[in-house]
Amino acid sequence: MSEVAGRMAPQAGARCLEKEVGGRGMLLGGVPGVAAADVLILGGGVAGTNAALIALGMGAQVTVVDRYPDALRRIAAQFHNRVRTIFSAADTVETLCRRADLVIGTVLIPGAAAPKLISAETVRAMKTGAAIVDVSIDQGGCAETSRPTTHSRPTYIVDGVVHYCVANMPGAVSRTSTFALTNVTVPFVLALADKGLRALTEDTHLRAGLNVHGGHLVHPAVAAALGLAHVPAEQVLKN
Amino acid sequence: MSEVAGRMAPQAGARCLEKEVGGRGMLLGGVPGVAAADVLILGGGVAGTNAALIALGMGAQVTVVDRYPDALRRIAAQFHNRVRTIFSAADTVETLCRRADLVIGTVLIPGAAAPKLISAETVRAMKTGAAIVDVSIDQGGCAETSRPTTHSRPTYIVDGVVHYCVANMPGAVSRTSTFALTNVTVPFVLALADKGLRALTEDTHLRAGLNVHGGHLVHPAVAAALGLAHVPAEQVLKN
Amino acid sequence: MSEVAGRMAPQAGARCLEKEVGGRGMLLGGVPGVAAADVLILGGGVAGTNAALIALGMGAQVTVVDRYPDALRRIAAQFHNRVRTIFSAADTVETLCRRADLVIGTVLIPGAAAPKLISAETVRAMKTGAAIVDVSIDQGGCAETSRPTTHSRPTYIVDGVVHYCVANMPGAVSRTSTFALTNVTVPFVLALADKGLRALTEDTHLRAGLNVHGGHLVHPAVAAALGLAHVPAEQVLKN
Amino acid sequence: MSEVAGRMAPQAGARCLEKEVGGRGMLLGGVPGVAAADVLILGGGVAGTNAALIALGMGAQVTVVDRYPDALRRIAAQFHNRVRTIFSAADTVETLCRRADLVIGTVLIPGAAAPKLISAETVRAMKTGAAIVDVSIDQGGCAETSRPTTHSRPTYIVDGVVHYCVANMPGAVSRTSTFALTNVTVPFVLALADKGLRALTEDTHLRAGLNVHGGHLVHPAVAAALGLAHVPAEQVLKN
Amino acid sequence: MSEVAGRMAPQAGARCLEKEVGGRGMLLGGVPGVAAADVLILGGGVAGTNAALIALGMGAQVTVVDRYPDALRRIAAQFHNRVRTIFSAADTVETLCRRADLVIGTVLIPGAAAPKLISAETVRAMKTGAAIVDVSIDQGGCAETSRPTTHSRPTYIVDGVVHYCVANMPGAVSRTSTFALTNVTVPFVLALADKGLRALTEDTHLRAGLNVHGGHLVHPAVAAALGLAHVPAEQVLKN
Amino acid sequence: MSEVAGRMAPQAGARCLEKEVGGRGMLLGGVPGVAAADVLILGGGVAGTNAALIALGMGAQVTVVDRYPDALRRIAAQFHNRVRTIFSAADTVETLCRRADLVIGTVLIPGAAAPKLISAETVRAMKTGAAIVDVSIDQGGCAETSRPTTHSRPTYIVDGVVHYCVANMPGAVSRTSTFALTNVTVPFVLALADKGLRALTEDTHLRAGLNVHGGHLVHPAVAAALGLAHVPAEQVLKN
Repeated sequence: MSEVAGRMAPQAGARCLEKEVGGRGMLLGGVPGVAAADVLILGGGVAGTNAALIALGMGAQVTVVDRYPDALRRIAAQFHNRVRTIFSAADTVETLCRRADLVIGTVLIPGAAAPKLISAETVRAMKTGAAIVDVSIDQGGCAETSRPTTHSRPTYIVDGVVHYCVANMPGAVSRTSTFALTNVTVPFVLALADKGLRALTEDTHLRAGLNVHGGHLVHPAVAAALGLAHVPAEQVLKN
Repeated sequence: MSEVAGRMAPQAGARCLEKEVGGRGMLLGGVPGVAAADVLILGGGVAGTNAALIALGMGAQVTVVDRYPDALRRIAAQFHNRVRTIFSAADTVETLCRRADLVIGTVLIPGAAAPKLISAETVRAMKTGAAIVDVSIDQGGCAETSRPTTHSRPTYIVDGVVHYCVANMPGAVSRTSTFALTNVTVPFVLALADKGLRALTEDTHLRAGLNVHGGHLVHPAVAAALGLAHVPAEQVLKN
Repeated sequence: MSEVAGRMAPQAGARCLEKEVGGRGMLLGGVPGVAAADVLILGGGVAGTNAALIALGMGAQVTVVDRYPDALRRIAAQFHNRVRTIFSAADTVETLCRRADLVIGTVLIPGAAAPKLISAETVRAMKTGAAIVDVSIDQGGCAETSRPTTHSRPTYIVDGVVHYCVANMPGAVSRTSTFALTNVTVPFVLALADKGLRALTEDTHLRAGLNVHGGHLVHPAVAAALGLAHVPAEQVLKN
Repeated sequence: MSEVAGRMAPQAGARCLEKEVGGRGMLLGGVPGVAAADVLILGGGVAGTNAALIALGMGAQVTVVDRYPDALRRIAAQFHNRVRTIFSAADTVETLCRRADLVIGTVLIPGAAAPKLISAETVRAMKTGAAIVDVSIDQGGCAETSRPTTHSRPTYIVDGVVHYCVANMPGAVSRTSTFALTNVTVPFVLALADKGLRALTEDTHLRAGLNVHGGHLVHPAVAAALGLAHVPAEQVLKN
Repeated sequence: MSEVAGRMAPQAGARCLEKEVGGRGMLLGGVPGVAAADVLILGGGVAGTNAALIALGMGAQVTVVDRYPDALRRIAAQFHNRVRTIFSAADTVETLCRRADLVIGTVLIPGAAAPKLISAETVRAMKTGAAIVDVSIDQGGCAETSRPTTHSRPTYIVDGVVHYCVANMPGAVSRTSTFALTNVTVPFVLALADKGLRALTEDTHLRAGLNVHGGHLVHPAVAAALGLAHVPAEQVLKN
Repeated sequence: MSEVAGRMAPQAGARCLEKEVGGRGMLLGGVPGVAAADVLILGGGVAGTNAALIALGMGAQVTVVDRYPDALRRIAAQFHNRVRTIFSAADTVETLCRRADLVIGTVLIPGAAAPKLISAETVRAMKTGAAIVDVSIDQGGCAETSRPTTHSRPTYIVDGVVHYCVANMPGAVSRTSTFALTNVTVPFVLALADKGLRALTEDTHLRAGLNVHGGHLVHPAVAAALGLAHVPAEQVLKN
């Protein structure tokens, strides 16, 4: 789903920059002679890379910030220097936010709340009519000013900055999202249908999804959350 | 302004394909493994070329139809075969509309109503949830089902097909549009400021804009509309 | 050799679409105003990726089908959305074959017969003058209608569909193939020349190629085929 | 038709480089680690530009020679430095032919025999198994060793060099060619149908095609060929 | 020669940014994670377009300023939005110079001194270690601080800004320049050799180069400079 | 630092080809109609890939030689056939050096002297005014004729071939280099600051950098160089 949300983010952002919703009245790609929007993407993972792909395609000036040199290197190789890649140091995000027209937040920490990279103070320092599309809103958002919205009322404004924080972005393109999800899950379904429990023995990814088996609690995180003991999946499946 | 409207059309169209407004729920660029939207652009002029540029950048499958081989050749050269170019023959538009997810109409005849290339029947034959963005709405629109809308209520649905027919598209990105317009007009303003009437003597484009001078009606179209005689600009300016 | 065969496939396919051999009389890349051929590539491995590279370069509309999302993602990243990538579901292949002008089959299962993805019925449903280039013919072919041909008589026709099933495609470009093969094998030859048997101890790939040593049958597949026992290479080499 | 012939030339040339017809056994695009073919295109007009487009797409190393700096500049702009462009000086063609694997001749002088840029001596100096695709064969060919061939027997060998000199190349892709031709001619047909003779008065291109009218011979070249007088079209049409 | 000078400018500029000559110590293209240089090109003509081509290729962030919308549109089409194009308004140049790492001046007015677009004050406001490559130095330079230098001592520093103002840039690549010049002039030489004076009658470009003929002064600018009368070339050549 | 040095190499090489320092007087990218420089890159690792990126961007004809097919395959995929990739066989380097205008040596063997791929005899056979940029000079250089130089006197000439062998290339762009280095090292510094010695227990890369701990010599290479015994880091850290 990160692919879908990442690719939707620039088009949602383009909409946020329109006058109707309180934006700067800026065309993402500009036209010859008029500057394109400065798009800042926080995070160079799957969502960030897909956001960069579409933002570039729409003609924006794109900067990706990440704290892993390898992520930046991979992005630089894929886009052949068309994207600015900047290593995330102390005040990088604040400096870049001040001059951005659109900030796309894609920073996620698996299994934890997204880090609040954009402080309320930084939002105050942004241009009037600039926009933030917070793709990480599903895990709490990466701006202090982010709060979940819906497809029917997707945006709100804080300190002149348009915020788009739809919690379930892929829902807007349900046809595409359903196929995308099915493509990824169908091999697991086929494996289960063909092999039954044996599928879990052979495939660590499937096994990692097992919660309860033979009366035993198996998933360590579930056990931890409930304060109960768990038996490793490998052991349960042997019996 | 055709540049601005042309570049906005695919992002307006992307919005039209979202579930919220009645669209197919399709992401314009798809994702790996799931088909991108099939975007049909009617007309390969300035607006059509700019629409193709952005639609391609958003990852769509783009087809441009025109009745001038040279326009298609120019587009093919600019986009290096990434766009399908099809010569407009008898039933080309209808056939292509049936399989399109998004149709962008950019066909204009200078000084005349846009031709109705998309019949009401063709609209009925389109996929449910497909969309039409009619950039030529300023001159009446190129679909029989088109009628002007506004930025606050941009779309409506006919026979399951989402219609976006905002009459003043560039108004949504007023900042970009104003700069774009100024860039084009400022050389004329400077010429007038520097040279006064002499500027019209030297520049046929400026002269063509003259309506009334020295008590004479000069512009032939205005004269025709009012049923009055006119004196050629060249003659009036000599005196 | 998959690289060579994959790259040859579109040029063989372009030839199959010519009138002379019974094809549709279609130029792979079309010309501005006339549609390019719709090329369907079954399989996104080495051969399929190389076939896509050349087919795109020749100006065709290219679709790649695979059942692994990762293969499609890799292709989408390499070709920047210029290729349609479709996940292989139940009737995907049949639907896509019906509208394809050229189908390039590259599906291989290592050590097994290629799966018959294209049924005889699907071939009957294809356009008259369409073509199939079956790169997997070395392992039996991926169409039910495929049977091996030679460079001197490379094609035959079934139900109006031109079949190109040359069993040893790289043989036609022997100079290129020989260099390609040598480049890959020469490091192994040098290792054997430098180190003798020790090279097999150090390199699992070389060791996996050992068949017989010191009077012992070593290769498990050979042993299985002959109904004899085998001694593991590691053990034989220690003595 | 120059577009069609130009685009077909590299795929015809790829075939000529195969062992089966006496070629070097070289894959046009090589593979990683093995050199691609060196393709020399004589002439940077429509046919030459289209030949370059496809040859590049097939992965070849492409050089275009022309004697007009503007043609080379246009090609350099279109292909962004991916093509070598060389100004045609005294012995340029001979030097470049010696190291080429494939020479594509597209040099035409409207209404005259093609210049013999490739001497028989140059052919003798070419590599064994190299190939010449002579697109200008319709006007006599640009190699001294060229003589017309047919689609059923397209090639012959002179001094070890494979010659492909099919006089009607577009005939092999008749479907594409017919559409391409129709696209260009249909506007004229419509103009004639709509306006009759008046169409010739309004359009110099149509008028230039008039041969005989009202008992008068009109076309100067026809008149010259027959040794008769002619009356200018403009004058005949006025009556 | 504008092509050569334009293409040399970014590599001269890259050198100027090195520590050794007083530059900022910046790599033109940066590396993944470290920002590339911000290159500002004044003028979007032949020299400016070629400078943009190479600066982009070296990985810089490129902005082109011009006062003609058509020039910017042509550049935007050629580079597919990879270059920022900005219309030259009142304080555009000063604002952009302040944030640029490298400014390349290519502004020429045929037959007149280059306009002083970069004031001494603007130079003072530039970053320490930034650089100016003034390609228009041959016509006086477009910075108030520019004065001609030579290939042996190409740079000097004013207010911390490295200036590269070599008057004959193409001289450094004499081999390339000589061929380039010959390619352009040789058709004229051949015409003169083939046709003598008649060549001037047939070709307005050649005729425009005529200074003196049959005892008459022909070239108007030479006549004006010497305060003498001149006879139009057309008239002189008729006799 | 290999990224920085690799990207600097083509611009250093472009400078070497200028007349001023004894080069051929050739513009790296040529101009339309005049051949670009033939750039040969020895080694397809990080430095070689970055050198290829910039050399291509400057418009050169680029060939990369490596002895690992996988390196060539990766480069071919990244640059989409715009680079010639050649497998390094017996006399490949010598043959290619003879026709190259610029050779960039990037071959490194970790922890050992660079192999002398370019013999003094090969240098003698190169074109007069050709150039060698030896990026591997830090480890002794890959040409027999290489000896370290400095930024103030970067080049010298042997047998007519300009040699650029600056030992610390990244020093010229110290600003870029410092950021690049910091980006890579700062995660390690943070880990040490957060976790102290425990950081070495958890991260093999950090641990591999430990030289001495608790009175024990830990680094095997240092121990070997000093003829002393060493205690494995894992063991020392447990105490």
